[in-house]
Order: sequence, then C-alpha cells, then structure tokens
Amino acid sequence: MLDELIRTVGLDHVVSPAPADYLTDATARGMRGSALAVVRPADAAEAARVVAACYRNDIAITPRGGGSGVAGGAVPDGGIVVSLERLNRIRSFDPLVWRIQVEAGVTTGRLHQLARGSGLMFPPDPGASEQSQIGGNLATNAGGPHAFRYGVTRRWVTGIEAVIAPGELITVGGPVRKDVAGYDLLGLLVGSEGTLGLITAAWLRLVPAPEAVHVAAGVYPTDAAACAAIERILGSGIEAAAIELLDAAAMRFGGGGFPAETADGALVLAEADGGTLEAAARRDALLEAMAEGAAAVQQVDDREAVWRWRDGVSSRLAAAHGAKLSEDIVVPLDRLAEMVAAVPRIGERHGLTGLSFGHAGDGNLHSSFLLDPADPAQFAAAQAAVQELFDLTLEMDGSISGEHGLGSVKAGYLERQWGPAAVGAHRAIKQALDPKGLFNPGKKL
Amino acid sequence: MLDELIRTVGLDHVVSPAPADYLTDATARGMRGSALAVVRPADAAEAARVVAACYRNDIAITPRGGGSGVAGGAVPDGGIVVSLERLNRIRSFDPLVWRIQVEAGVTTGRLHQLARGSGLMFPPDPGASEQSQIGGNLATNAGGPHAFRYGVTRRWVTGIEAVIAPGELITVGGPVRKDVAGYDLLGLLVGSEGTLGLITAAWLRLVPAPEAVHVAAGVYPTDAAACAAIERILGSGIEAAAIELLDAAAMRFGGGGFPAETADGALVLAEADGGTLEAAARRDALLEAMAEGAAAVQQVDDREAVWRWRDGVSSRLAAAHGAKLSEDIVVPLDRLAEMVAAVPRIGERHGLTGLSFGHAGDGNLHSSFLLDPADPAQFAAAQAAVQELFDLTLEMDGSISGEHGLGSVKAGYLERQWGPAAVGAHRAIKQALDPKGLFNPGKKL
Repeated sequence: MLDELIRTVGLDHVVSPAPADYLTDATARGMRGSALAVVRPADAAEAARVVAACYRNDIAITPRGGGSGVAGGAVPDGGIVVSLERLNRIRSFDPLVWRIQVEAGVTTGRLHQLARGSGLMFPPDPGASEQSQIGGNLATNAGGPHAFRYGVTRRWVTGIEAVIAPGELITVGGPVRKDVAGYDLLGLLVGSEGTLGLITAAWLRLVPAPEAVHVAAGVYPTDAAACAAIERILGSGIEAAAIELLDAAAMRFGGGGFPAETADGALVLAEADGGTLEAAARRDALLEAMAEGAAAVQQVDDREAVWRWRDGVSSRLAAAHGAKLSEDIVVPLDRLAEMVAAVPRIGERHGLTGLSFGHAGDGNLHSSFLLDPADPAQFAAAQAAVQELFDLTLEMDGSISGEHGLGSVKAGYLERQWGPAAVGAHRAIKQALDPKGLFNPGKKL
Repeated sequence: MLDELIRTVGLDHVVSPAPADYLTDATARGMRGSALAVVRPADAAEAARVVAACYRNDIAITPRGGGSGVAGGAVPDGGIVVSLERLNRIRSFDPLVWRIQVEAGVTTGRLHQLARGSGLMFPPDPGASEQSQIGGNLATNAGGPHAFRYGVTRRWVTGIEAVIAPGELITVGGPVRKDVAGYDLLGLLVGSEGTLGLITAAWLRLVPAPEAVHVAAGVYPTDAAACAAIERILGSGIEAAAIELLDAAAMRFGGGGFPAETADGALVLAEADGGTLEAAARRDALLEAMAEGAAAVQQVDDREAVWRWRDGVSSRLAAAHGAKLSEDIVVPLDRLAEMVAAVPRIGERHGLTGLSFGHAGDGNLHSSFLLDPADPAQFAAAQAAVQELFDLTLEMDGSISGEHGLGSVKAGYLERQWGPAAVGAHRAIKQALDPKGLFNPGKKL
C-alpha cells in the first residue's frame, strides 16, 4: 500500500511513520492520534489517486489542513493523514469581479492579505489565521467575530472541488454567484469535517473592504450589564460588524494587555464599519447604546492591536491555571444573559472557575472551565461541567457547536441535539457518500 | 387511502378530484399535472401523518406553496398534492433580536410587511410576493434582485421543521444564528424542490432595514455599454444592494411604463442603500460609475414604482408575442457581456427574438425567447434555442439555474452541468433520504 502511495505522490511525500506534528491539532486535551503515514499530494489529481488507493485497500483517510482545529477533527485514528499543505496555489484572482479560486492549503492569512491588497475583503476570520488553511475553514465551516455581520465561511463559497468516494474528483458550483441547479452538495461538504470527502479547492466571493472601521469598547461592573448592552445594540437596530463579550471572569483571567484603558468587570467590543461617514455614525450609535450601565465606554484607536489581543484571549485563559475545557455553544440571543450567568454557577458546582467569552452577538459563547492539567480530578470535573453546559444549551434550543464542529471531542453528541429521525438522515447521508466509512472515521457521529 | 387522509385532516381538507388550480403553477408552458387529491393539513403534525400514510401506501407527494414557481416544480405527476396553505401562522416574532419563526404557508409579502413594521427587513425578494409562500421560497432557495448584496433565501434561514420519509417531523437548527453541529441538512432541504421532504416551518434571521434607499437608472445605446457600466460598478468597489439589467430588446418589448424618463436602449438599475449619509454617497458613486457611455443617467425618485415595474417585466415580455421561454442561467461576471451579446444571435438562428433581463450583478440572467403560443413551430424553435443557451452557459462555467430550480421543466439537466460522480452523489442522497422516491417524483433529476 505504501508503495502505491509512493508511486502516486513520490517518495519525499509519503512520510512513515507519521511525524508527531501530524497526529495532533490545537485541541487542548492532550490528544494524539495514530497513522500509518502522512501523504502530501502535489495537486488535486494526486489527491484523488491517493483517495482511490485508500478506498480500494480499506485504508482510512484523515484530511489535514493547518492543524489549528480545537475539536480533534484532524487527529487521525489509524489509516493515513492526507495533508493538503502542498495544494497552496492561487488558481485565479479576479479582483474586478470580487472573485478568487484558491487551493485548500492556502492559509487564511494569505487570502486576507491578497484580498486586502486589492481593496477587497474575505470576511470569515477564525483565529490562527497564519496557520489555518482554507480547506480546514471549509471543512469546519469556520466562523469568527465578523460572522455577526458577514456570516460564516459557507456564505462566501460559490464552488468547491473535492475528492469523494471512491476517489472521484468532483466540482460543484464554480465562479458563479448563484446556483440552485442541484442539491446543495457544496453546503453539505462544507462543515462535514472531512467525513464526506476531501476538499481540494474553492471559488470564493470577496466583497469591497469597508472604507473605515471603528472599535467601541464598554466595560461593565456586572456580566448582566454587559449582556444588557448587547441587547440594546440589537434592539436599537445597529448593524454592527462584530459584537464580542468577555465576561468579568474572562477579563480577570485572560484580559491582560488590553490595548486601552479598562476597569474591573465585563467587556463588550463592538465594531462599526462601512463608508467613512457611515462607520462614524454607526460608531457613535454603538457608543450611545453601550453607555447605559457602563463603567467606561470608549473608542479603541488601535484596531489591529485590539483584535490581536482578542485572538490571544483563549491562550491566556488556558495559561491561567494551566489548561481549560472550552466549548463553542450557541444560544438564542434572548437567552444570552441567562447562559452567561449560569456558566460560573456550573463551574462552582464542580469546584472550577467557569466563564464565557466569544461572539455574543451571534449567541456563540466560548464557555470555558479553567483547570490544572496536572490534576486529573479537575479534568474530570471540567468534563462533567461541560455536560451540564450542553444540557442547559439544549434546554434553551441552542447548539452544542457554533464553529468548532464536533470532531472527535464531541463525536456522537449530535444525538443530544437532534431527534432520532434527523440523526437517522445524517447517518444515511454518511452511508450514501462514504459507504466504507473511510473518510475521517470517529468524527462527527 | 382517501379515507385515511380524511380521518387525518378532515373531510373539508381532502379535495378529490384535485381542483385545476392545484395542478399547475406559473410556468408558461401550458403544463397541467394530475393528482388523486389535494390534501390541506392544518399543522405540521397533520402534515407528518399525511406523509406517513402516503409513504405506507406508496402514494407520491407533491408539496405545494403559492404556486408561483416557473419550473413546474409544484405540478403533480400523480399521487396527492399536499398544500401548505393552512400552515400560515407566525409562530413567534422577536424583533428585538431580529428573529421570526413562520409556518410554510405564510406569504413572502406578509413576512416583508411584518418585518418592515418593526424597522427590520427580510431581504430575499423573489417576484410574486403576494402569492409566493415561504415554504416555496425555501424549497427553491429563491433569490431576487437584492440577492446581489443580501444573498439568497438560504442565508436567512437558521432552522427548519420538515417532514421527511417515512413521515417523521424533524427540526434542524432553530432560533440560533450559528450551528455547525451536524451536516447541513437544513441547506440540503432548502433548494431540494420538495424532493427530499416537506418543509413545514422555518426560523428566519432578519436585519435592520436600511435608513435610506436610492435607485439609479442608466440607459445605454448598446447592450455592450450597459454591461460595461455594470463591470465599472463592481470594479469601482461599490457595494450596491441590487444591480439589474434589461437589454435593449427587453426594454423594447417589456419596458413600457418605466416610471422615469427613458430612451431607446438597454437599462441598468442599481440600488444604493444604507444609513442616510451612506446611501446618498453610494448613489452618487453609482451615478458616476454608470455615466460613461450612457444616453442618460438619473436617480429614480419613486422606488416602489420602479420595483413594481420591474416585477412586471416578465409578464409584459410574455405578452409581447403571446408567450416566451425564459430561463434563469448564471454566468461568471466576466462573461456577462458575452452572454448578453450571444442571446439575440441564438434567437436569430431559430427565427426568434432572444433577449436578456435580470439580476446581472449576480450574473443571473432571465434570457428569454419570445414566441407565439399558437405556433407549435415557434415553441419547438424556442426549445432548441434554450438548448443552445444552456450549452453556452456551461461552456462558460455557468449554471443552468440561478433561482427557479430544475423542477420538471429541466428535470434531468443536471447531468449536463455536473460530472457523473457528482450526479451519482446527488442520486445517492435522494435514495438515502427518500428510498421509495415518493417526494415530488419527476423533479430535479
């Protein structure tokens, strides 16, 4: 089998045994998988031949992007890892019609930079942009702060090229802005976490970059006051570009280095973008809506610094006690304050600090429990706390995953969110498209 | 069988034989289907029992919304018609968090009105809003002029309730703005034209209505000049809300009653929306980008009148010679001018007037061939012309359907757009979710 793979991609690109780097991702639970080899195809045609060889020989395939996932979705469970890192070409870029075609291994950061260089924007902004690759963004249907206004990755994809079982290279959609001819196979592959196929390239829509962007920050003495401010932003009909929350505990343990004045309490960050006039008007409206009950409300001048700081919150929180279990639940917006209030109490019941931060305008919270990784009892307590968190999320008609996916960490949890008939349909689709169950086994269901 | 249906929904709501109104839709090809009965469930639970009875007895089910489709998607081919007209409740409306839950039979117009009454907007705006129902909008993933900025229906749906085989009521998603827990079963059902299940209700996202909206109109001596203006709008990075085109022939045959000054030639309509200041700035930018090569460029003051006029273009064109064959192709934007130039030539080769109008900013054209319905030779010629139109569309990497769907009119055409492996996946999904093939048979594939 390895011989066949070597004939396909060349000796240099079949690495066996698999290097340790390829057996893990950014999931902070000490997960390490196993794989016979890492295979690095040069292009989509080679990727298709690799999958065909695996499908013939009943070898499992774990697709791998930048490895920045946090649900164990890229952690292999036997078989081979197919790394898309060499598929890193920009196939076409047509800024005049707001369109780009990229291979799966192009990093999110490079795409952002390219778009920006032509006055355009690719709005999805998941964390770790220098590491994460478009293929992985698509596989998880990645979100980020600006999903509030601009939606998640799926919205910006007009076509994909993918390898499906038993090794067929398909193209669905393309350089078109609308297409309802077939079932939404594109949308089905996006977010399927590599369990239905291997995405090799995508056509993406871009949009003109806003002329101006302003960040407004409000600090509130209580979490409830911060949530009330978020409700007022929406209730006032202000179309912010992003609405982020760090509750008081998240600020205490992970708020260090905030690039503006701050105070004890919870933080709301809201961004206003648009044309020069509009962005300023929106910023003023935000500052007004955010003022009530605030200890301080201000415009943050260094936007880049504030988002860099925001990107580091998760790591700082993990460092506070050594580790954390962190989820990506979503609740209906009218339950936001209730959930933010419940998380610390859930933590307390398990002897842990529970806190929330994240994309509060979308109801998408990285509710987390801080723990000392040297203490197995704390890890077990955090796992129990997460179960309570999920129970409460589902009681609120929420979702257990807003952007990370289920991966292996939450594999099998869908049964708690969907009824048996919907889960049955999910299973039927997996069986129909991957009858041998070789694409990323052990993930999702 | 009818007895069982009568026990389920009541004698008044099983109408047999099926009234003629339920055997046709707005497809202008004289299509009339056949059905044993029309069944009108009162709610989702009844709809599920109706489907269960049909699935047990091998009776085909054609779901029916407002009947404004133009691809024969709601034209039954035996079995029963399940009309969702009685599922017309607003289940919940939470304007403060920009959210509404409606049943499938609520009309698009009523939804627009409700949202507007609270300063919000449901952006998808397919034609026939007083007749078309949300269930049908979802089943076809309907578009409309404002899809250019705001996307098609799918983008605004966060949850659906649907009946799938063999009669199970499922809920996927809900009142949440993000959800990547399971496969995108929601997106799969949306746009599946009733072939995978019956949508009974949906949770929709709303967005604050823009403070101001302005329409700019440019008239151009040639179609090429009009297309160049559209390219300049995009190339200038102006994020219009809508960019519509009527080529010179479409204006000649269907442009009557334009609510502003006009001249011979092709028309570009572009809309600018946003806050008061921004919308005005955008309008000015549009007028500037549209000026080059124009016979006249102006702001149209009566926005409502212009969109009402636009909604009537299709009927006026049909009336010109008695009928038309009209498609909804999509081409990459850099091929727009080429396609607009090709359609009249295709028409000429078949002795017909060929023209294009539609959502040109999305590359989505209602390219049409005018014909006299009393002359069967013209109908055959138009059908041949449409085949050429599709061939050219696919040569350009376009799509044969941007918003109408395949229905029965284009059933089986997907093979021309997708390769065999992708079509195989499409078939496998249909087989997995509707093993007896009872949901809207003869549609899509």
